[in-house]
Amino acid sequence: MASHDNGGCVAISGGVGGAKLALGLSRILPPARLTIVANTGDDFEHLGLFISPDLDTVMYTLADVANKEVGWGQAGETWHFLGALERLGGESWFRLGDRDLATHVVRTRMLREGSSLSEATAHLCRALGVEHPLVPMSDDSIPTTVVTRGGERLGFQHYFVRDRCAPEVTGFEFSGIDAAEPAPGFAAALASPELAAIVICPSNPFVSVDPVLNIPGIMDRMRASAAAVVAVSPIVGGQALKGPAAKMMKELGMPQSALAVAKHYRGRIDGLVLDARDAELRDAVEAEGIATLVTDTVMVSLQDRIDLAEATFRFACELPARTG
Amino acid sequence: MASHDNGGCVAISGGVGGAKLALGLSRILPPARLTIVANTGDDFEHLGLFISPDLDTVMYTLADVANKEVGWGQAGETWHFLGALERLGGESWFRLGDRDLATHVVRTRMLREGSSLSEATAHLCRALGVEHPLVPMSDDSIPTTVVTRGGERLGFQHYFVRDRCAPEVTGFEFSGIDAAEPAPGFAAALASPELAAIVICPSNPFVSVDPVLNIPGIMDRMRASAAAVVAVSPIVGGQALKGPAAKMMKELGMPQSALAVAKHYRGRIDGLVLDARDAELRDAVEAEGIATLVTDTVMVSLQDRIDLAEATFRFACELPARTG
Repeated sequence: MASHDNGGCVAISGGVGGAKLALGLSRILPPARLTIVANTGDDFEHLGLFISPDLDTVMYTLADVANKEVGWGQAGETWHFLGALERLGGESWFRLGDRDLATHVVRTRMLREGSSLSEATAHLCRALGVEHPLVPMSDDSIPTTVVTRGGERLGFQHYFVRDRCAPEVTGFEFSGIDAAEPAPGFAAALASPELAAIVICPSNPFVSVDPVLNIPGIMDRMRASAAAVVAVSPIVGGQALKGPAAKMMKELGMPQSALAVAKHYRGRIDGLVLDARDAELRDAVEAEGIATLVTDTVMVSLQDRIDLAEATFRFACELPARTG
Repeated sequence: MASHDNGGCVAISGGVGGAKLALGLSRILPPARLTIVANTGDDFEHLGLFISPDLDTVMYTLADVANKEVGWGQAGETWHFLGALERLGGESWFRLGDRDLATHVVRTRMLREGSSLSEATAHLCRALGVEHPLVPMSDDSIPTTVVTRGGERLGFQHYFVRDRCAPEVTGFEFSGIDAAEPAPGFAAALASPELAAIVICPSNPFVSVDPVLNIPGIMDRMRASAAAVVAVSPIVGGQALKGPAAKMMKELGMPQSALAVAKHYRGRIDGLVLDARDAELRDAVEAEGIATLVTDTVMVSLQDRIDLAEATFRFACELPARTG
């Protein structure tokens, strides 16, 4: 356990990369001091089931049942449902494993019976032995639409999984976000007087983090808290460790670098954690009014996750939070 | 192929026992001459999925993917979904296999999107290569309620699967049947001028066959056709080959015998196929105004199924149909 002050932490996460840091944070902070908020902009309804890919990746990671090789789904998964579905002519591009399916069936049933996504998530987490509060960014549906060069508008999973991120993107839309509210657990964590750090995990800034930060009032709530906001750059040495972030930056006309990440978050974060490979960007980032921490951000082992969590949380706790 | 006349056949079936004879009939009659009608009184919604156990048993039997050992589900089935569901605290008393689940997911999606159960069934049958028309008794929901001695009212699958038929029954209710209509394919098959035989498969008279025969107008339509109605007794030597039929007869105060089956169907059938073990009941059955055929009705091999189908169909074709 860390020896920092006794403040709390809100961690904002997308899928794989974010979940790694969230896991690290869960090893240094007890459940009462850490709330993990997952992006739900990539949630979708598929085959009549409500699927929350990022939420599930974080949940499976915390429950230690995640498939670490592919970064989604459960370890030791089997695919008999999907094989039978294919035979029946069903859409099989989204790989639903036999075990994973139980999560979607339980969640779908709870949502159809009137539970909120927060309630369904709490139920699933309890059953899987996840002790840290994991909450969706919102109980409202805020589906991400990917706008492509050709003018086609794709649901996020169709872009991400079915089309393997091949289409060139020109922008993103978060439908319904203007009327959306943060999930109760997210709002409560931001309002806590003990909050000491808000950590934006190394997730895709455009499709994993922006949907969270763009929920009406979230930036105000973050600024109103005493906690500093620090992000961990998902771009290391000009590349995304996983996913289409760097490809998107290029298509959006941005340099593929951690500096561009800093500029994207400018005005929204107090500090940025840079990988040692990007140490030379330090001054440029600080010139944007963003404090920096340079450390090793590539998480391979569990200890890497814990070390980065420790360094990031300490960095945030020691930063003076902006005053809005 | 049989050398009877070229008439058509409607086969009315519940689950396992009925499906065996339906399979036999499908081997002697081409698709244009055989319509199989499955009981849907035991359909239910479970975990948000629409499940049609009898329809699926017949479909899997015709598609040759049925689990012949247990009489439900698919051969070589796996249970990873169910294991994960149990871990999540979900109800696992109804055994949904990984492959089987694809059927329910596809059907549920189609029904939610506005397809009829007939349309969903046709889609599934096509995908599984089932060539003979298989139709639900109705596209309307007619759930069977089992009324028990203690006064408790149980949904059929709760009685049948969860409680393993242990409660003592006093009667059955088919909710909504007064407003229900036969499925279009069922009605069309009964109206066909080529119809030569209506076969009631060896299924449970109370919970598999009565729901079909009690749909308003079905008896009138059957009587209006030129075809004779013959049933194959599901009670052989005073026992049900499978399922709770004999137990129910006892609880309902009826003798456990094929004669009681004849009396139950009196006025609704023209002929009854008795097993050779029950040959001594022949006169008593005929005294009820029901013609008899005595043959071997216990179907072990595929050839047994074909032989019984052949004998039953011929018996029906040669019987003068009642004139209403």
